[in-house]
Amino acid sequence: MDQVDYINGKTRLYGIVGDPIAQVRSPEMVTHELQRRGLNAILVPLHVARADFARVVPHLMQLLNLDGLVMTIPFKAQALSLAHSLGLQAQAVGALNALARRRDGTWAGDMFDGMGCVQAFARRGLALRGKSILLIGLGGAGGAIAAAVASEQPLRMHIWDLDPDRCRQSAELIARLSPDTQVHVGPPNLDGVDVLMNASPVGMLDDARLPLVADALAPELVVFDTIVYPEQTPLLQLAHRSGCQVVTGREMMQGQIARIVDFLIDAQKGSTNPV
Amino acid sequence: MDQVDYINGKTRLYGIVGDPIAQVRSPEMVTHELQRRGLNAILVPLHVARADFARVVPHLMQLLNLDGLVMTIPFKAQALSLAHSLGLQAQAVGALNALARRRDGTWAGDMFDGMGCVQAFARRGLALRGKSILLIGLGGAGGAIAAAVASEQPLRMHIWDLDPDRCRQSAELIARLSPDTQVHVGPPNLDGVDVLMNASPVGMLDDARLPLVADALAPELVVFDTIVYPEQTPLLQLAHRSGCQVVTGREMMQGQIARIVDFLIDAQKGSTNPV
Repeated sequence: MDQVDYINGKTRLYGIVGDPIAQVRSPEMVTHELQRRGLNAILVPLHVARADFARVVPHLMQLLNLDGLVMTIPFKAQALSLAHSLGLQAQAVGALNALARRRDGTWAGDMFDGMGCVQAFARRGLALRGKSILLIGLGGAGGAIAAAVASEQPLRMHIWDLDPDRCRQSAELIARLSPDTQVHVGPPNLDGVDVLMNASPVGMLDDARLPLVADALAPELVVFDTIVYPEQTPLLQLAHRSGCQVVTGREMMQGQIARIVDFLIDAQKGSTNPV
Repeated sequence: MDQVDYINGKTRLYGIVGDPIAQVRSPEMVTHELQRRGLNAILVPLHVARADFARVVPHLMQLLNLDGLVMTIPFKAQALSLAHSLGLQAQAVGALNALARRRDGTWAGDMFDGMGCVQAFARRGLALRGKSILLIGLGGAGGAIAAAVASEQPLRMHIWDLDPDRCRQSAELIARLSPDTQVHVGPPNLDGVDVLMNASPVGMLDDARLPLVADALAPELVVFDTIVYPEQTPLLQLAHRSGCQVVTGREMMQGQIARIVDFLIDAQKGSTNPV
């Protein structure tokens, strides 16, 4: 009988909730990762209107074959109210991007936006602990990266955003998560920096700018850019020309997908520790 | 980047709602049909607990990328309340198995359980109009088949179920839908019958019984069985041995899938007539 082979009545569901939804990449990437692990499971896009979130999402969570939700813009902060327990990153950032149903029926939440960055560095064998980090951009992704990187206990974090409130909040967060890390707020400056991280939108799509002023970079510098399109941003092109090691936004996204799937599956196994 | 190719952020969703859900075939069959038609769409299983139906399903219908629902046991009658308009079959049977979102945001409902049978006969070029039909079994599927077959205006319908209430209801329904059809209620009897239809569970799985007493069948008889497993029921095996033409439960299911997908897609096109 004519049929497809990747879904049936026993398929377990995950969803990504956002508004808009068409641009999200989790359906193809998380589904691939779930199926790579041999699970009969799929992650589907769930387009919930902003005004409907509080009414609709708690009811989605009552579907008996739905085991987890990924949250994206604009719901990451609002979704905190849906979790019965929160991991450390979600507590630190004040937002979550994954909710997993545990075997006892309660829901665990955590934030993986920054952990994907840390995971990408770990996969490359690049240490963050004890290093001097320059992080440019402290919006949704940058704030989560500040928290995740701080948890790795770097020696120094130099952070910068055009919004002074974001600078203050991230500085306080880093101080709380890693009291021994030196925090410095100010315009980008590469003096003594081991790892340069761009979490600003500068360099996205056809933006030809760099997120800081530089003609060349020291070849010892490790350069990371959160931007996924293009994969080789102007900053990463400069880093390649300068002989630097480079970590891409796609590597971060892969790292995040792997960590989210770990989280979703471990919760199903009845883990009591959602982090 | 590692990903699957059958789902992404733009994928439109359909769902089948039931309790239990693991046994349903629509996810792989309807999804195949949607993709065969070139649509970026998927049908997923949605397991809703019986007690949660009235609370959860109206909220599922608020997902902006969900365009339709298929209903299965035990929700076909209860789902009537979710439709803003009903097709003739749903009105006749008092139940529906498909809900489609129209472009104006309202939901059209109809019942395709019997239409799949009619569609399977039509695909084979086998007429029901003017014929003498013996239909055994008037439960959920049988009742819907009685209505759909009556709408084809057969000469005579001989119907039978162990439950006298079902016999009475189906007889009334046939009389309403096709006043010129002669209706007869009583134990199975093949005298003058052109088409024998089994909609009882007799012969399902490892049940070796026939739904009526017969050692052989007239080779002119057309024999149809709603049962999908096994595809060749004891009744259909006897029909083959007797040289009869045979229509299978799988053909009915294929016919029903095609009709449901037509209905779901036509509603999206803004058709004002849900039938």
